[in-house]
Amino acid sequence: MKTIAAFVLAASAAALSTPALAQFAKPEDAIKYRQSALTVMATHFGRLGAMVNGRVAFDAKAAAENAAIVETLSKLPWAAFGEGTDKGGNTKALPEVWKEQAKFKEASEKLMAEVVKLNAAAKVGTLDSLKGAFGNVGAACKGCHDNFRAK
Amino acid sequence: MKTIAAFVLAASAAALSTPALAQFAKPEDAIKYRQSALTVMATHFGRLGAMVNGRVAFDAKAAAENAAIVETLSKLPWAAFGEGTDKGGNTKALPEVWKEQAKFKEASEKLMAEVVKLNAAAKVGTLDSLKGAFGNVGAACKGCHDNFRAK
Repeated sequence: MKTIAAFVLAASAAALSTPALAQFAKPEDAIKYRQSALTVMATHFGRLGAMVNGRVAFDAKAAAENAAIVETLSKLPWAAFGEGTDKGGNTKALPEVWKEQAKFKEASEKLMAEVVKLNAAAKVGTLDSLKGAFGNVGAACKGCHDNFRAK
Repeated sequence: MKTIAAFVLAASAAALSTPALAQFAKPEDAIKYRQSALTVMATHFGRLGAMVNGRVAFDAKAAAENAAIVETLSKLPWAAFGEGTDKGGNTKALPEVWKEQAKFKEASEKLMAEVVKLNAAAKVGTLDSLKGAFGNVGAACKGCHDNFRAK
């Protein structure tokens, strides 16, 4: 049984501050983190999609909650695409992420901006308000995947 | 190249509403989701730990941001421990999660309650305020891992 001190130490060991890896001790940690953030984001975005596509009944409260989670998560992955994190783990990130950094940054900013609108639209509380914003976020996801993620 | 419609459909396919899996199409999806949420939470908790342990300089703004992310994430994993998600993927969850559901629920609620306090403490903006709350969250993490997670 680990002591609490050892537990807490282990929890913070991943947070070494090195410029090259932007707070990740190893490339694998950065890759796992960014994939995890994207997985959580995609799950909650998918729940909105289920409402938009009529697969589940529209629920204004659930829509607002899911959109808020999507917004929080949408800000996280990008800092974990630092130099040296192009290899390691099972990353599907293409070399273009690092070769075309301005374009990748633009794509991530586009996503975050559309997600802000999605969150605002979800708070309106109607399915119609959600639909347009959902489609625009989906397009932003796809735009980035098409250019920066292996099929 | 997938169309946006196909992309959005894929995004929402994971959100089938089945009672047994609580919004996850497959046990593997629930396992991947809960592990992802815990990974993101642990990363940001670790950044607070680095400040608490003096590994990096205390930064009140960063502390508040990290604590807020921890709070959002702390609410997410538990719904993904539904019936039928005890096997699949590479889960380390012990059978006790499902055998002792009341105790597991209590442990998750303890964590969430301590994280609310952590978030409040981080907003105070001093390292001292953070330290105690950080330790209590660490203890709540450890308590649950000791009983419900394979070593």
